[in-house]
Amino acid sequence: MAGTWGSKRIFECAKRFRLNIDAVCVMNGPDRLSDNTFFYVTELLKGGAFEGSICVIDRSGEITVITSPLEEQSARRLKGNLLISRKPEEMKSLLKRLLKNCRRVGINAPELTHANYLFIKKVIDRNTQLIDISKAIQYARAVKSERELKTIRRACDIASRAYNDLLPRIRPGMKEYEVSAELNYLLGKYGATSPAFTTICGFGPNSAEPHYTSGDAKLKEGGILLLDFGATYEKYRSDITRTIPIGKASRRFREMYRTVARAQDAALRYMRPGRISKDVDATARKIIDNSKFKGMFNHSLGHGLGLATHDPYGLSPRFDFKLEKGMVFTVEPGVYIPGYGGVRIEDDVVVTEDGIEILTHAERWSPL
Amino acid sequence: MAGTWGSKRIFECAKRFRLNIDAVCVMNGPDRLSDNTFFYVTELLKGGAFEGSICVIDRSGEITVITSPLEEQSARRLKGNLLISRKPEEMKSLLKRLLKNCRRVGINAPELTHANYLFIKKVIDRNTQLIDISKAIQYARAVKSERELKTIRRACDIASRAYNDLLPRIRPGMKEYEVSAELNYLLGKYGATSPAFTTICGFGPNSAEPHYTSGDAKLKEGGILLLDFGATYEKYRSDITRTIPIGKASRRFREMYRTVARAQDAALRYMRPGRISKDVDATARKIIDNSKFKGMFNHSLGHGLGLATHDPYGLSPRFDFKLEKGMVFTVEPGVYIPGYGGVRIEDDVVVTEDGIEILTHAERWSPL
Repeated sequence: MAGTWGSKRIFECAKRFRLNIDAVCVMNGPDRLSDNTFFYVTELLKGGAFEGSICVIDRSGEITVITSPLEEQSARRLKGNLLISRKPEEMKSLLKRLLKNCRRVGINAPELTHANYLFIKKVIDRNTQLIDISKAIQYARAVKSERELKTIRRACDIASRAYNDLLPRIRPGMKEYEVSAELNYLLGKYGATSPAFTTICGFGPNSAEPHYTSGDAKLKEGGILLLDFGATYEKYRSDITRTIPIGKASRRFREMYRTVARAQDAALRYMRPGRISKDVDATARKIIDNSKFKGMFNHSLGHGLGLATHDPYGLSPRFDFKLEKGMVFTVEPGVYIPGYGGVRIEDDVVVTEDGIEILTHAERWSPL
Repeated sequence: MAGTWGSKRIFECAKRFRLNIDAVCVMNGPDRLSDNTFFYVTELLKGGAFEGSICVIDRSGEITVITSPLEEQSARRLKGNLLISRKPEEMKSLLKRLLKNCRRVGINAPELTHANYLFIKKVIDRNTQLIDISKAIQYARAVKSERELKTIRRACDIASRAYNDLLPRIRPGMKEYEVSAELNYLLGKYGATSPAFTTICGFGPNSAEPHYTSGDAKLKEGGILLLDFGATYEKYRSDITRTIPIGKASRRFREMYRTVARAQDAALRYMRPGRISKDVDATARKIIDNSKFKGMFNHSLGHGLGLATHDPYGLSPRFDFKLEKGMVFTVEPGVYIPGYGGVRIEDDVVVTEDGIEILTHAERWSPL
């Protein structure tokens, strides 16, 4: 039968959420504004930007992609029908034909631009409804297939090895951006297509800014260095954070580190199928909030990881889904003291039959 | 007076397009799905992801940002009002208050997710209209300020220097991804926050795939190497392509190269304020289509460049706007022969008073 793991799974999950649809239409926006579902479904993971491209799935799971001549070479790996469109008018008529006779078409509202929503709306018949099936899509993508896990494992391995190689090269006098450059090089050397996101290298007070990038602060003895980085491998991602002292660790740093490490450890030991996401977050948060660092853990414990670095199904006080075998998460408690510095420890894990498996093996600083 | 260059300029441009609005509301999606207008307006260029954050501009150009505690440190550089929201309900009530008494609120449909559109729609009063002002926003962002140009110049300089340093290191036996890793390292060493996009390193037949990434093909004498890369510097981008032969250049490669170089040169000499975008494209395309490589230039001549790698206002057969002083473009003709290889030459230029200035200075292969 036609289709891919992803194209069939989306229909199965739609049923699970009682969403009755005849077809699914996924459309990428311009530049980086693509819907990762496009890559999930088509498995076109080795190249191609596919800006503005469309993927339609029919009831049988069969895929049709409409793209531009620019992507024709990249699309040759597609297990489905390929239509090449030279201009928007052509794209409209091709899409119109594909969605003819469909009454209920599923879309993915959180990754579809509003302009593309209006484009699709204009193309379809007046009786055709567009139905946001993002619940089903997010659930489908949250539980990974064996093929997906293999790719994520590789992304985790690349990032871990890159960090382990970097570690002996870090020395006082280096600038933040030089450390990032070395790390990005090593990510590439071990086979990453690209860094998974802008590598964060924050030294001293900059380590207290969770989404800092890298500047030209110089590493000095006695300060804290925080590195948050990941690899993209065939469009799947890893995401690791390590925090180390430069030179001798201060007492305050040791305390912060021990607290964060204990929080992470507690969460990891708590995780297994059936546990509730917000309880996992609470397990880690309780440890920090019962320490002198109360209130200084100012983000969620973790997020889903896959084709996006920040995927839905996060370990957050706001979500209460049940953990399932095959779900992949970051587990990343942190403590941030503005003006002084921050400590975050982050690893990637997959939920197994009876617990979790840690996919990252970047060395950890030892507070002993 | 309050506001930034960008916040005021958007209102001016809205007037130019006869769009009558009381306020503008820009909202970022999850992960990479942010609206670059958020960064254009707030000038928060040095750090912070600001996923799901909102920026509201009032009639006077004054900015209010609603974000999460996670971004509080990164947002401290904001020249405007900062509101911290701990959960979606809080965000709703803050946004509701900000947009109260507004009857016509401008949005940017091509970079707003449909889910966020629905979020805003739900929050506002029944009498408030959401108006897509993307035309005005795209025009505003197309013509760069002096500050923006300075940043883009820096991004172009970084990428050019990185390539010039890379060139003597390229040798047969290297794998595509190793070349990319070296190049990414050099981008970082010269101060890039990150590569502007996944660096493309295509060898041999892979060079014929315009949006290839990098694989493990080995560089061999007699083949073509195509490198497409750029730097991000404070969220602005550069974008360069260079194509070189490994070892001795074949006759066919020389012919392809000369044709593409002539096409680029003709376009560059044609460009100046008042020229029509599609005529610039045609100037280059004519040269290729009058050669033996007719029909093998399968994409537009160039795209706008700024906060996104692929910004609107492109040099394409489909657009007929007038070039203006301060607009920044890539100029990148190419010829692709599936199964054999491709040649693309790409530089970044800014339109000046009476022509263009080339911002990139990566060495060019000489077919002499």
